[in-house]
Amino acid sequence: MITLASDFGSPYPAAMKGVILGRTEAQLVDVTHDFPRQDVRAAAFWLREVLPWFPPAVHLAVVDPGVGTDRAAVVVRAGDHALVGPDNGVLVPAARELAGEGGDPEVVGIADEDARSSTFHGRDVFAPAAADVHRVGIDDAASLDRLSSVDEFVGLSFPEPDVTDDAVVGEVLAVDDFGNAITNVPGHAVEGLDAVRVDGQSVPVGETFAAVPEGQWLVTVGSHGNVELDVNRGRGDEAFGVAAGDDVRLSFD
Amino acid sequence: MITLASDFGSPYPAAMKGVILGRTEAQLVDVTHDFPRQDVRAAAFWLREVLPWFPPAVHLAVVDPGVGTDRAAVVVRAGDHALVGPDNGVLVPAARELAGEGGDPEVVGIADEDARSSTFHGRDVFAPAAADVHRVGIDDAASLDRLSSVDEFVGLSFPEPDVTDDAVVGEVLAVDDFGNAITNVPGHAVEGLDAVRVDGQSVPVGETFAAVPEGQWLVTVGSHGNVELDVNRGRGDEAFGVAAGDDVRLSFD
Amino acid sequence: MITLASDFGSPYPAAMKGVILGRTEAQLVDVTHDFPRQDVRAAAFWLREVLPWFPPAVHLAVVDPGVGTDRAAVVVRAGDHALVGPDNGVLVPAARELAGEGGDPEVVGIADEDARSSTFHGRDVFAPAAADVHRVGIDDAASLDRLSSVDEFVGLSFPEPDVTDDAVVGEVLAVDDFGNAITNVPGHAVEGLDAVRVDGQSVPVGETFAAVPEGQWLVTVGSHGNVELDVNRGRGDEAFGVAAGDDVRLSFD
Repeated sequence: MITLASDFGSPYPAAMKGVILGRTEAQLVDVTHDFPRQDVRAAAFWLREVLPWFPPAVHLAVVDPGVGTDRAAVVVRAGDHALVGPDNGVLVPAARELAGEGGDPEVVGIADEDARSSTFHGRDVFAPAAADVHRVGIDDAASLDRLSSVDEFVGLSFPEPDVTDDAVVGEVLAVDDFGNAITNVPGHAVEGLDAVRVDGQSVPVGETFAAVPEGQWLVTVGSHGNVELDVNRGRGDEAFGVAAGDDVRLSFD
Repeated sequence: MITLASDFGSPYPAAMKGVILGRTEAQLVDVTHDFPRQDVRAAAFWLREVLPWFPPAVHLAVVDPGVGTDRAAVVVRAGDHALVGPDNGVLVPAARELAGEGGDPEVVGIADEDARSSTFHGRDVFAPAAADVHRVGIDDAASLDRLSSVDEFVGLSFPEPDVTDDAVVGEVLAVDDFGNAITNVPGHAVEGLDAVRVDGQSVPVGETFAAVPEGQWLVTVGSHGNVELDVNRGRGDEAFGVAAGDDVRLSFD
Repeated sequence: MITLASDFGSPYPAAMKGVILGRTEAQLVDVTHDFPRQDVRAAAFWLREVLPWFPPAVHLAVVDPGVGTDRAAVVVRAGDHALVGPDNGVLVPAARELAGEGGDPEVVGIADEDARSSTFHGRDVFAPAAADVHRVGIDDAASLDRLSSVDEFVGLSFPEPDVTDDAVVGEVLAVDDFGNAITNVPGHAVEGLDAVRVDGQSVPVGETFAAVPEGQWLVTVGSHGNVELDVNRGRGDEAFGVAAGDDVRLSFD
């Protein structure tokens, strides 16, 4: 199984699929091709949220503002999974999650030769690498001619919220298609509270959207375990006036 | 084979796919994940239009404004097909169609235990139920531990048009991506007519878009058998000023 | 393997998939269902860009402003590939590319009987034809009852740029989801140049986006071999004020 994720929209991902299927027989599953354009951090967040739900697979993910540079394709092993994508950190949070408690993602190799002559790395560099890793299996991927060995890869960490006695200043990591604004504030910050101040305004804390009437604001802890700014049957990002990257201050009376 | 439909956009459906593929080997086919947000009736309409074209399969469909409530996941048998989704009626018109003439959809069981602790029922309740039904087969689904038996499920019927001697007052059920406004008025209401008044204005009735010049309004009978308000190479919803849920009055001179 | 492409949006393509899977077991791969609505030339361009990357397959492509006319479904053989779609030229550039150097696409047959009674040819005419071609194989497709033999099909050529000593006047063939405006001017027209005038304004020529600072205009040669009007991390179509079909004048000092 090979999963595919990118910010390519359509139809470019289909060329990647053609290249893969010409090299290996695999079930292909799209994660999305609508990641926010060239937003490595948002993509890294979503990959960490989604990929751990898959059985062992090769995960190809391309969000690469550096296309056209000497950016290499990195192949990472994490538990029984393989991840293939640009060496810009986009794979890292998902890889850590897939490696599990006590495990560590391990870089299997890096492919940069092919990257120099192409303006479409997704098709010409990343897709063939993912197909070849799938074909030989992650255990034998290090032996692939296309990969040279390296010791490390570019890291990526989500920002940590700034915690004081009576407030947490966090950041919006991503906004989902429903308009829910997902922050980096861990859910335990609002545990047991009935309400919290968001940028000064009191907002109810609810376990589910249904905790408030339709159209009302609320703070929940999403399935990812982080604090979300939501509106029941509405868009939290618009109501709270926030976008990915914006600071959010939660304060407690 | 498992088909998937929802109003989730992306990338949430990929988490459902990961959960399914970790439990059963199946070909996955997306129906759509762009149903109008939380519009149970429009989703029910489209599922009825699309699912009957599939060979026997498990059909997972999630449009669930009640997420976070005690809404249960219902498993319905209809002919050789299984449908899995929220017990809010969204599956019902498709199930009736799949059960065929003289057949009746039958509720196989209901899963509500898992629903209490999750804010992402699609991934944590509906996807595992669909995977397990696929794994054991619809004939043995009743024996699944996750299902308790019930006798009935929430119904859903499309509104009936109001018919008088010289007019039919119907309703727009759905608007497709082309802008065609699909009503609940059966096609025979305009059979044999050259024109009909739509909210007072005379509009030609045509068998196909090509019956009128580009940019002109027309009334057709769509592939679903109902009256549509269309524009040849344009958007009927904008030209006629209607959206899903709006009344439409067809009158005959 | 069957690839699918259309301008249908969703959920109509799912009905085509159901019809296909009821007739043949095949891996289905979406090319896109978001082709610019009823733009045969843009679809023909993208099919030529994407389909040659696939291993031998049946390629179903439906962009058909003539739906509802007597437009027939044509089955074309090109190398080891089969293409199925409306006989309006949309398949032709891809078929020529797939047939390869010295090869020629060959029309295997044409299906028009079914087309007369349907308003959804994608589901009722094209999908069954593609499924049957896949089931019997392209070598035996001519024997399918649904196909009658014909000798030729409707052609389609992209416009040629107008070349003079100090300028090339070309046309925008398509705009991709990134906003890159892809012209019909072959890349060698800007080979070795540092800059070129686009509609009078001097613009740098770069091998990759990274050749200019973020937000700056540039001219590149895309993976398709043609001249593109781009902005590094921005939309070229908006910056240059062009859309598909617009003329572009490149001049050289």
